[in-house]
Amino acid sequence: MPRFEQNLRIPGPTALPPSVMAAGGRQMINHRGPEFAALLERIVRRMRPFFGTTGDIVLLTAAGTGALEAAVVNVLSPGDRVLAVTVGAFGERFAKVAEVYGADVRRLAFAWGTAATPDAVRAALLEESAVRAVLLTHNETSTGVTNPVAELAATVREIAPDALILVDAISALGAVPFEMDAWGLDLVVTGSQKAWMSAPGMAFAAVAERAWAAMESARMPRFYFDLRRARESAATGQTPWTPAVAVMYQADEGLRLMEEETPAGVFARHAACAAATRAGLRALGFELLADPAHASQTVTAAWVPDDVDWKAFNGEAKRRGLVLAGGQGELKGRIFRVGHLGSVEVEEILGAIAVLEEAALRTGRAVTPGAAVAAAQRAALAELGAPVAAVAGGTPA
Amino acid sequence: MPRFEQNLRIPGPTALPPSVMAAGGRQMINHRGPEFAALLERIVRRMRPFFGTTGDIVLLTAAGTGALEAAVVNVLSPGDRVLAVTVGAFGERFAKVAEVYGADVRRLAFAWGTAATPDAVRAALLEESAVRAVLLTHNETSTGVTNPVAELAATVREIAPDALILVDAISALGAVPFEMDAWGLDLVVTGSQKAWMSAPGMAFAAVAERAWAAMESARMPRFYFDLRRARESAATGQTPWTPAVAVMYQADEGLRLMEEETPAGVFARHAACAAATRAGLRALGFELLADPAHASQTVTAAWVPDDVDWKAFNGEAKRRGLVLAGGQGELKGRIFRVGHLGSVEVEEILGAIAVLEEAALRTGRAVTPGAAVAAAQRAALAELGAPVAAVAGGTPA
Repeated sequence: MPRFEQNLRIPGPTALPPSVMAAGGRQMINHRGPEFAALLERIVRRMRPFFGTTGDIVLLTAAGTGALEAAVVNVLSPGDRVLAVTVGAFGERFAKVAEVYGADVRRLAFAWGTAATPDAVRAALLEESAVRAVLLTHNETSTGVTNPVAELAATVREIAPDALILVDAISALGAVPFEMDAWGLDLVVTGSQKAWMSAPGMAFAAVAERAWAAMESARMPRFYFDLRRARESAATGQTPWTPAVAVMYQADEGLRLMEEETPAGVFARHAACAAATRAGLRALGFELLADPAHASQTVTAAWVPDDVDWKAFNGEAKRRGLVLAGGQGELKGRIFRVGHLGSVEVEEILGAIAVLEEAALRTGRAVTPGAAVAAAQRAALAELGAPVAAVAGGTPA
Repeated sequence: MPRFEQNLRIPGPTALPPSVMAAGGRQMINHRGPEFAALLERIVRRMRPFFGTTGDIVLLTAAGTGALEAAVVNVLSPGDRVLAVTVGAFGERFAKVAEVYGADVRRLAFAWGTAATPDAVRAALLEESAVRAVLLTHNETSTGVTNPVAELAATVREIAPDALILVDAISALGAVPFEMDAWGLDLVVTGSQKAWMSAPGMAFAAVAERAWAAMESARMPRFYFDLRRARESAATGQTPWTPAVAVMYQADEGLRLMEEETPAGVFARHAACAAATRAGLRALGFELLADPAHASQTVTAAWVPDDVDWKAFNGEAKRRGLVLAGGQGELKGRIFRVGHLGSVEVEEILGAIAVLEEAALRTGRAVTPGAAVAAAQRAALAELGAPVAAVAGGTPA
């Protein structure tokens, strides 16, 4: 019996664990009352270790894109020079938001599938004077690449010490180690439907002192996404506008589960699922998009081979309950993506690889039955530090 | 046995019917797949009769305030002259949003508790030239007043035929008759947690042709709330950003229930609950804030009498599970509000009045036990057209 009706292998919304689902079915409460204040406090308190911050985290009722907009409009003024480091569709989106609100955006774009390099960021900052903010993507969902945010931030601090560092950490925060304070990041945003194992609808913005200070003089227009208003309300246990209460119930329960598993446990599980996904897909003959040195722990993108009829292949997967994501932007129709974040377990990845293996066989591709599943399982075990040789040989360790 | 743990008598979030609650506990789906497209289509189709429109309705993942911002920034440019008709805190908020984004806002403010009048709107429009948009509040949640939107809109069309009419219909749309197309409104917004019986998190914007046309030249910055992007995505059964899927499950179920009850049935139930609330509160000696000619069918505000210790009174209500709303803005601490919208039944209003009656007795007010509940019940029956004389006299009709 599968845990879920579908094997929802898209990079968010992610499948909800049973207790999180149940939390979404709870009755409403007064969002101006003490029960709500306690809920808000718990969510922020439990999120802080995953952000790696002791500072403020405010909640926004919005998709992640709303939080990207909040990051931009709260700390910048029209005309401000912004360096947008882009490695895919979401980096491009972040840059676009800044442009729409009148920032003077310089793009430092890397080939899709690669990560940003500190050297290139250094060169770009040396070339540009008076960069007010650097926009970074932590995990690029469109390509399955995780940027070396710590190194990139250190470079920014070295060359442009006063520049604000705004980070889109939507699709991996909570699933991998992250140290906002230690890395010197100023504003970091994420969304409920990713590693947090909840339904979509709430975004979270962690704000450091430098960013709060920047808001004093920032002149981009803002009302709904005004973070200072959110901080003011939070001081009385509220949000300025009516929040997505049921999503907060779910985030609260998801965080309880994550705390119980411990951050280290959550990270190890994601690493194992990611390793299994990559090994399984490679064993099926798929080429992966991401530079292996920067492959994401939460989403893996694979090229659709020229000889594969993607529609037939994906149709076969769907028929078996496996839901994959397609490509975005310039990669639409050319790649597919497998999400492995949130409540994901290695068994679900093995299930996905098994379905893809069968789909490959049925659509006439030359694969050895069982080989991809075995490769995925070995990779997961190796990642978890299990005695793989013994397992492979059938001899007890 | 009460249907709910609390008698949540605030003007949103409203208590969810059991099947709507259950819908919030469903598993996630791919928001780029056919199941989602069907969900989106059903919601829009079932909402149209309540908006009184055959036109477009787009979904936003946001609180109602986000939808107010969307209404403003999509159709206006900085410097545009705007007439903001305000009768309370939410009208003031709408005006403020327009100001923040650079509109040249003229306020036509009415005393809190009264409705806007066509004559005053006429005079204001005759005084101002080149008004690009008029901001109207349909139902002012802070005071419990419903504006005569049809008459106000007719006046705008007469004096300033080209002005856009933007309507905050957040807190009563779905609960009372509304005819967007017939009244010539250009952009109307509402929120999931009000009459729609769902959790908060989604807002809905109905957009008429004149408003779509205005977007071609409107220059206020917008990205997350870009309605044209939403329309473009809707054409393929999607939303531009990841939506609050679980809230959509609930809105879908809420609308199914509302369709089953029929719009006329929903409206009659709200009218009965409103009549019961007003009669019960008056029988308890509370003075109501709203001009009776424009009293809201979804929320009633009452003055806190000078001799009532509100904290003690409200504490007693809370202890009995009755959750009321306080005052907002200039009325904070001076009024309390009773919400009667969404899944509300007359029995719940009677329960609320009973608790208030007991609280009045316990806090030493001179009330006749049972009188307020009886008054509320009579008012509800009269509103529903029941044979009240017979009921009052105890004789079968």
